[in-house]
Amino acid sequence: MPLFHRVTILGPGLLGASLCMAIKERMIADKVRVWARKQSALELCKQEKWCDEAEPNLKDAVKDTELIVICTPVNTIEETLCEIIQESGHNSIITDVGSVKENICRIAHAGTQANATTFIGSHPMAGSEKSGMEYAHSDLFNHRTCMITPLPTDSAEKVSILEKFWVQLGMNVQQKSPEEHDKIVASVSHLPHLIASSLAEYLSHSPDGWLEMSGQGLKDTSRIAGGDPSLWREIMKSNRSFLLEALDSWLGSVNDFKNILTDEKWDELENYLAKAKECRTKI
Amino acid sequence: MPLFHRVTILGPGLLGASLCMAIKERMIADKVRVWARKQSALELCKQEKWCDEAEPNLKDAVKDTELIVICTPVNTIEETLCEIIQESGHNSIITDVGSVKENICRIAHAGTQANATTFIGSHPMAGSEKSGMEYAHSDLFNHRTCMITPLPTDSAEKVSILEKFWVQLGMNVQQKSPEEHDKIVASVSHLPHLIASSLAEYLSHSPDGWLEMSGQGLKDTSRIAGGDPSLWREIMKSNRSFLLEALDSWLGSVNDFKNILTDEKWDELENYLAKAKECRTKI
Repeated sequence: MPLFHRVTILGPGLLGASLCMAIKERMIADKVRVWARKQSALELCKQEKWCDEAEPNLKDAVKDTELIVICTPVNTIEETLCEIIQESGHNSIITDVGSVKENICRIAHAGTQANATTFIGSHPMAGSEKSGMEYAHSDLFNHRTCMITPLPTDSAEKVSILEKFWVQLGMNVQQKSPEEHDKIVASVSHLPHLIASSLAEYLSHSPDGWLEMSGQGLKDTSRIAGGDPSLWREIMKSNRSFLLEALDSWLGSVNDFKNILTDEKWDELENYLAKAKECRTKI
Repeated sequence: MPLFHRVTILGPGLLGASLCMAIKERMIADKVRVWARKQSALELCKQEKWCDEAEPNLKDAVKDTELIVICTPVNTIEETLCEIIQESGHNSIITDVGSVKENICRIAHAGTQANATTFIGSHPMAGSEKSGMEYAHSDLFNHRTCMITPLPTDSAEKVSILEKFWVQLGMNVQQKSPEEHDKIVASVSHLPHLIASSLAEYLSHSPDGWLEMSGQGLKDTSRIAGGDPSLWREIMKSNRSFLLEALDSWLGSVNDFKNILTDEKWDELENYLAKAKECRTKI
């Protein structure tokens, strides 16, 4: 028996449309309802087998549904949440797929006090430097990690249902507080993005022809610098403090490296590289 | 007609054994001769179809052969070159596959003045964070870039033959001076390695469980930190000055990023990320 009768996906982009596909394929809900801000996106959804109901009105889209997943662009998640929080059914669960959790959970907590709706933040760590429905696929979430960020006051039953939802999508689910989540992703996701971007920005000043001399190493190290600048602007803006902390801390490691090179301490260099290699094997 | 009657490969590791395979497969030489320092490695080669002659004596290995490719570990290239430079046939070409070129070319230039042997440095930008014969494959060089670093005094004919050799292996060949080569790889190869390693070293101090929260982005950004520490120690040691220059220059880009975040200049952040993305598409 499916976990839900009806699930509503707000925003059929890469993550939203992939979610619809995976929910249908894995029979997690009888009905998948989609809302999109743009009529053209909604028209495309209507032609897809994974879309049972295409609803142009946001307030209608969140009625009579057990799970609402906000997959709108990261800078509109909070605004979308505020628009629906008073409209959704009293027993429904609202979640999102944004990369930063502290702020949204605070807003949601204030807004959901009034009724029985529960917002529990989710961060499925799946995606791509590509964006848009055309890159969606039903395997996007499989074998990936999803952090969910319930508050201590949230209903244990609803937390458990949300956890089941992501597990049924093939994800490894971890519960963290919103603050801890943001601290972790600052280090393991947002800092790597900053690093890849700084490398690509540095190389943009190279003489003509230098980039053609690069190999697979540079390709991999810089890949995520190809991500959407407006999306990453919002992510970094939302997680500025923790990202700055992680940046400073990592710069300490870079400085150690620089001192080793400057002082020509070659045994220390090998130890440093070996420590890095050992950590890399765990990633 | 094959380009060479006989080619000698010194050191059948990942690069050396892959070269043997590719030379045979593409019929670039009638005979492939292999020399290895370890008898056990030589025994393994004897069982392979790509090895026509397995020679345990280094001085004999470089006699009566038109091309000698030094593929020994990076810290032994110079010593291997010194051992063979007086022994190889007067018209043979010696090359290597090392990642740093200025020093080896200087040593070779001094050593080859006495006879007609020509050393011309090569740097095929192919490889893997894996090392050893067991990972060798004949496609390793295909569609990759190879820099060759002839000196103005080298015979144009021999430079042209060496270029043909790499082209027949499927490579895009670029000629650079040894110094220019080392400057370029400091930026596009050695700095990315330093960066990936510094990220992994930083993350090695993370609380338990954090690394499990990472996604594909961190995997890619840190992949090359999995490279062999002793190999990279030697590469960075050989290219220390240019690497330090590249490091300082890149740290300027990191500092710009930090200032943007600190000062909350979000439009500037988006411009920075867009510039990085634009450069990334060219890599």
